[in-house]
Amino acid sequence: MNTLSETRPASLCLRAQPLTAEAFAEFGEVLDSTGHTPLLINDGMTERYHALARVDTGGSEGHGLINLFHARPYALPLRLTSMERHPLGSQAFMPLDAQPFIVVVAPLGEQVATADLRAFITNGRQGVNYRRGVWHHSLIALNAPARFIVIDRGGPGDNCDVLPIGGAEGVVLDLVSAQA
Amino acid sequence: MNTLSETRPASLCLRAQPLTAEAFAEFGEVLDSTGHTPLLINDGMTERYHALARVDTGGSEGHGLINLFHARPYALPLRLTSMERHPLGSQAFMPLDAQPFIVVVAPLGEQVATADLRAFITNGRQGVNYRRGVWHHSLIALNAPARFIVIDRGGPGDNCDVLPIGGAEGVVLDLVSAQA
Repeated sequence: MNTLSETRPASLCLRAQPLTAEAFAEFGEVLDSTGHTPLLINDGMTERYHALARVDTGGSEGHGLINLFHARPYALPLRLTSMERHPLGSQAFMPLDAQPFIVVVAPLGEQVATADLRAFITNGRQGVNYRRGVWHHSLIALNAPARFIVIDRGGPGDNCDVLPIGGAEGVVLDLVSAQA
Repeated sequence: MNTLSETRPASLCLRAQPLTAEAFAEFGEVLDSTGHTPLLINDGMTERYHALARVDTGGSEGHGLINLFHARPYALPLRLTSMERHPLGSQAFMPLDAQPFIVVVAPLGEQVATADLRAFITNGRQGVNYRRGVWHHSLIALNAPARFIVIDRGGPGDNCDVLPIGGAEGVVLDLVSAQA
């Protein structure tokens, strides 16, 4: 029924797990209030979850940028063929339409080993901040068009490296539940 | 019927207008795709509305912070008694629950003149970035508890000044439509 999954080796299937701060710690921060204690400000009217992440602009030549991304959704299973990293700064994504999205990451390094890829699905409230230099797939929205606020780095220098992954077959991304 | 509006001089009533980029330009940026042309990235799957605002951290000692605010709503009319500014950095608010909020600002300067106050109501999709040093009221959510992502400045130094406004009476904030 599913020609994509029937024609690929099982070892190249990547399954997205629920995103948690602990599981993601190697790659950056989860942007969510869960597990954090707020400061009460504004005469008690506002809870401030302070400094969930820092905007890393890689030195004095860079500056933080605030952008909006409008993403078209992908259908799963999805064949992934490349990963990217931003060597000069962090990059944060926060959903504005309460929609889950998938985060695919790999550890710091000059290469991306297929076996080291990790995939996480957010719960619709969570965002992520990729630490500077962390390999990640481009934005994978699901279900419907979705808006995100993105905080990253502007300034001089080449701030995007791209590497192919998975050879001619790529790597097939799916949810755990879809194949369990 | 409305004792709050009956007991104050008319000159201290501040009415919130719909937020537009043009009307807000003196104070900062509106964070919204409207009126901007996107870059098409990620193989055409994502529109990037690039650099809608810059994170101003006021020099090399500061850094950008990503925070979440959970705000309790206010009812209108609302008596405002103080304004604040961040002399060392910008501060951006983006709603995560598609709720309108009210933005009250005053021009750069060492004092806040009541006559110079401006109030805007967002359309539920818009965020704002207050330029460094712009006087603003603390977060005014409406209708329901609401989450915001806030991008501001961390680092050494005192980054919050507060001034009282409107004397003993304060300044009464309301919507245009409520009293039209």
